[in-house]
Amino acid sequence: MTDQKSFQDYYPEVLSHCYGCGRANEHGHRIKTFWEGEESVTHFTPEPYHIAMPGFVYGGLIASLIDCHSTGTAAAAMYRSEGREMGTEPSYRFVTGSLHVNYLRPTPIGVPLEIRGEVKEIKGKKVVITSSLSANGEVCATGEVVAVQMPDTMMS
Amino acid sequence: MTDQKSFQDYYPEVLSHCYGCGRANEHGHRIKTFWEGEESVTHFTPEPYHIAMPGFVYGGLIASLIDCHSTGTAAAAMYRSEGREMGTEPSYRFVTGSLHVNYLRPTPIGVPLEIRGEVKEIKGKKVVITSSLSANGEVCATGEVVAVQMPDTMMS
Repeated sequence: MTDQKSFQDYYPEVLSHCYGCGRANEHGHRIKTFWEGEESVTHFTPEPYHIAMPGFVYGGLIASLIDCHSTGTAAAAMYRSEGREMGTEPSYRFVTGSLHVNYLRPTPIGVPLEIRGEVKEIKGKKVVITSSLSANGEVCATGEVVAVQMPDTMMS
Repeated sequence: MTDQKSFQDYYPEVLSHCYGCGRANEHGHRIKTFWEGEESVTHFTPEPYHIAMPGFVYGGLIASLIDCHSTGTAAAAMYRSEGREMGTEPSYRFVTGSLHVNYLRPTPIGVPLEIRGEVKEIKGKKVVITSSLSANGEVCATGEVVAVQMPDTMMS
């Protein structure tokens, strides 16, 4: 696993500053996402202060992880759908059109979280990703993200 | 405005550790929400590193702000619906059942963001809050949160 490049490692440098997933953002979460068959997987261990209250992860972090996991998966899915390797041109980078998270149960702090994603739909410039976030093998939240190809206006 | 206590200032100390809105979390965002008539309002200026890419706020922060703004508004709305002052017993504290965010346009970094919320529905232990997030007077995202009264299991 550790020798493998993550989806985010393929982002061009200029698109690698995201607080959630940019390898160039020294303050951020720097999540890393990989394929496992048809699913995409991210592991992340929150900091002790990422709490809603003592003992439990705060919902904003859960939303952030699902968000960046999903936009990364969307990019990887587009390459895969075209039979292209990530990192080849033209490069894909997605932003979030909409984000939905269902919080099923409190998420315990202090253990690694696992986010698993699936590609629900690819339609034009839009990719829909569903995901689940687990702790200790138990699903604590589910998500659905509509990811859209980054508009050129964000690159200016 | 500055003399006024925010919703979050009324949370009991044990419930004031949230990374998004807890006044006792020194690492967190410590948002503060107030009534303005029927609407609730939070102002927050992101840090320079809270970016999706240079120039724009990252979506996870937007989701976090909408989330904590909404659970705070839910608590305040419950007190108000009962004609009680915040801080009186029994105290109300809400967690997020579900969170939905629509990202309408890129949110510029470097300016204060304004989140405005409205109470859509109060039903039993559930409060639905709709909100909009603006920068420079332009709405960049909208949200809907189903907030539910915190289960006792989170307090143990």
